[in-house]
Amino acid sequence: MPQTRDRNRRWTLAERPKGRPDDGTLDFETGPVPQAGKGEMLLRTRWLSLDPYMRGRMSDAKSYATPVEIGGVMTGQVVAEVASSDVEGFETGDLVLAGSGWQDWAVSDGQGVQKLPPVERPSWALGILGMPGFTAHAGLLKIGEPKAGETVVVAAASGPVGATVGQIAKIRGCRAVGVAGGPEKCRHVVETLGFDACIDHRADDFEDQLKQACPDGIDIYFENVGGRVLFGVLPLLNPFARMPVCGTAAWYNNAGLPDGPDRSPLLMRTILSMKVRMQGFIIFDTFGMDDYRDFAKDMQGWIADGKVQYREHVVDGLENAFDGFLGMLDGSNFGKTVVRVG
Amino acid sequence: MPQTRDRNRRWTLAERPKGRPDDGTLDFETGPVPQAGKGEMLLRTRWLSLDPYMRGRMSDAKSYATPVEIGGVMTGQVVAEVASSDVEGFETGDLVLAGSGWQDWAVSDGQGVQKLPPVERPSWALGILGMPGFTAHAGLLKIGEPKAGETVVVAAASGPVGATVGQIAKIRGCRAVGVAGGPEKCRHVVETLGFDACIDHRADDFEDQLKQACPDGIDIYFENVGGRVLFGVLPLLNPFARMPVCGTAAWYNNAGLPDGPDRSPLLMRTILSMKVRMQGFIIFDTFGMDDYRDFAKDMQGWIADGKVQYREHVVDGLENAFDGFLGMLDGSNFGKTVVRVG
Repeated sequence: MPQTRDRNRRWTLAERPKGRPDDGTLDFETGPVPQAGKGEMLLRTRWLSLDPYMRGRMSDAKSYATPVEIGGVMTGQVVAEVASSDVEGFETGDLVLAGSGWQDWAVSDGQGVQKLPPVERPSWALGILGMPGFTAHAGLLKIGEPKAGETVVVAAASGPVGATVGQIAKIRGCRAVGVAGGPEKCRHVVETLGFDACIDHRADDFEDQLKQACPDGIDIYFENVGGRVLFGVLPLLNPFARMPVCGTAAWYNNAGLPDGPDRSPLLMRTILSMKVRMQGFIIFDTFGMDDYRDFAKDMQGWIADGKVQYREHVVDGLENAFDGFLGMLDGSNFGKTVVRVG
Repeated sequence: MPQTRDRNRRWTLAERPKGRPDDGTLDFETGPVPQAGKGEMLLRTRWLSLDPYMRGRMSDAKSYATPVEIGGVMTGQVVAEVASSDVEGFETGDLVLAGSGWQDWAVSDGQGVQKLPPVERPSWALGILGMPGFTAHAGLLKIGEPKAGETVVVAAASGPVGATVGQIAKIRGCRAVGVAGGPEKCRHVVETLGFDACIDHRADDFEDQLKQACPDGIDIYFENVGGRVLFGVLPLLNPFARMPVCGTAAWYNNAGLPDGPDRSPLLMRTILSMKVRMQGFIIFDTFGMDDYRDFAKDMQGWIADGKVQYREHVVDGLENAFDGFLGMLDGSNFGKTVVRVG
């Protein structure tokens, strides 16, 4: 069921999931292609980015962003091609970064749409050269403030943010220790990405392995998962450790709070006794254009110099987006998840 | 049983308490007065400070400071008078700030001992003009970074740190909301200290009252208790809220972790979604002499101008120090707890 010019396929929110999203969560619908009016342009989606934050948008719990409405198209960033344009500065054929969501076609007045330079791999604008790369760069460097010789730990180390965090840590002279799911990912993290070590969080003795991989303790924990990894990290934190908090993916599917004991006193006591600085951040709220320019300059240079490796998990066809999304949440995808839409 | 020149009374650690300290925790012993040798001085304790951190020193759990050894004298800051001196710069009769601990007499080589200027109320050097005052000043101003118009919440608001945090918040043009135990303390916090509101944490509807007292949400939560207050604060935090973490007194007596549910995911999600910056600090580790000078200058000025009120809870006699300590932990003392020793 390929992308065509005469219909618009789209994923809409059918019901708010309790726990893990399932077959009833989204609807896959087909409708007419929307019409671009005066001062508008029509965008054809080529690549759709799938990211962990989207789980949060399915929920109406208090969060940092407005949830998707029931019946509304799932939000998401895309690389799109301008199919027709009455917007100044955009021409038919231009490649753009846009917030079209999970659908083939979208109409835009140009607000928030960013023109992409001609590039070899446009989908990278959704990953290493886009939001996940910026998240890793700003979170590690501006909140984590790594110093050469320090130890940096990051989970989801084969994912787009974690992989980038560890590679930047290495560039800055730190020891980089990743956490990932399974031996294949761990091998990739060490052999291809150049981390010093990578621990399988599924191992029974995960906590012991992590301790052995961090003989000098942990100075920066880039938090993107929560759960078991967080509590394995806590007893290893050094005085004045920093903890940029970018996600808590292990808990995204929890409908309520997990059973006890209540570990919040342990967390708070560690923050106090180790004098930890912990800072939650939402990339486009916390950081501004200056930070973005720092990121873009660094990252383009590192990629050109071959200092940063990047891996994508490509899902073929918009109709498979939901399966790809579940695979990302479960950790069975390997690399940055993108959907080749058209 | 007053202080005399021919014996040294002292409190030593008999056993590490599990939970709340009790009669078996400390021993009250009498021994000879120690002899000051060459290059040493003999210090007679006049005032002993009792502070929440001492509960931590009774325990050998991993912490920021070495625990007191079994049989060792309980640590503590004192105002002492120099009884005899072979240390340059210290004369008989000088008043000093020293780490003598819970005892009548101590010998020192002058390391870490600070001479006090002649002052009307020397015990204030243990409170508003000492460590608790510095903790409030640096924690609020350097970590909290208050801006005029913001809302600052602090617990133990009639205690030496909390009272000072709120009064500095008012000086800086913030709304100050205190939390304290019982109507008498709450009245003092509002009427004498000038907070905008004070909530009794024993009230059944504490969370609702706190919400009503913070109509514009909470920008800074100065954390010194943990427990119910922390979880009442979390849903009220504004984006980019700051949380200096100076203590978790509500949990100090917990032997293990409390029963579930596990609220750590709630804590982490709030930090993320509200982009909270949380920083644990230990006053003399985190802050340096420049910070101390900023504090001393500000505080001396505010006291001279009558802008800051200060209240002490005076325990009479070293023999009553342990009861005074329990009263402080339980929240039944009212003001900064000091022991008049001699």
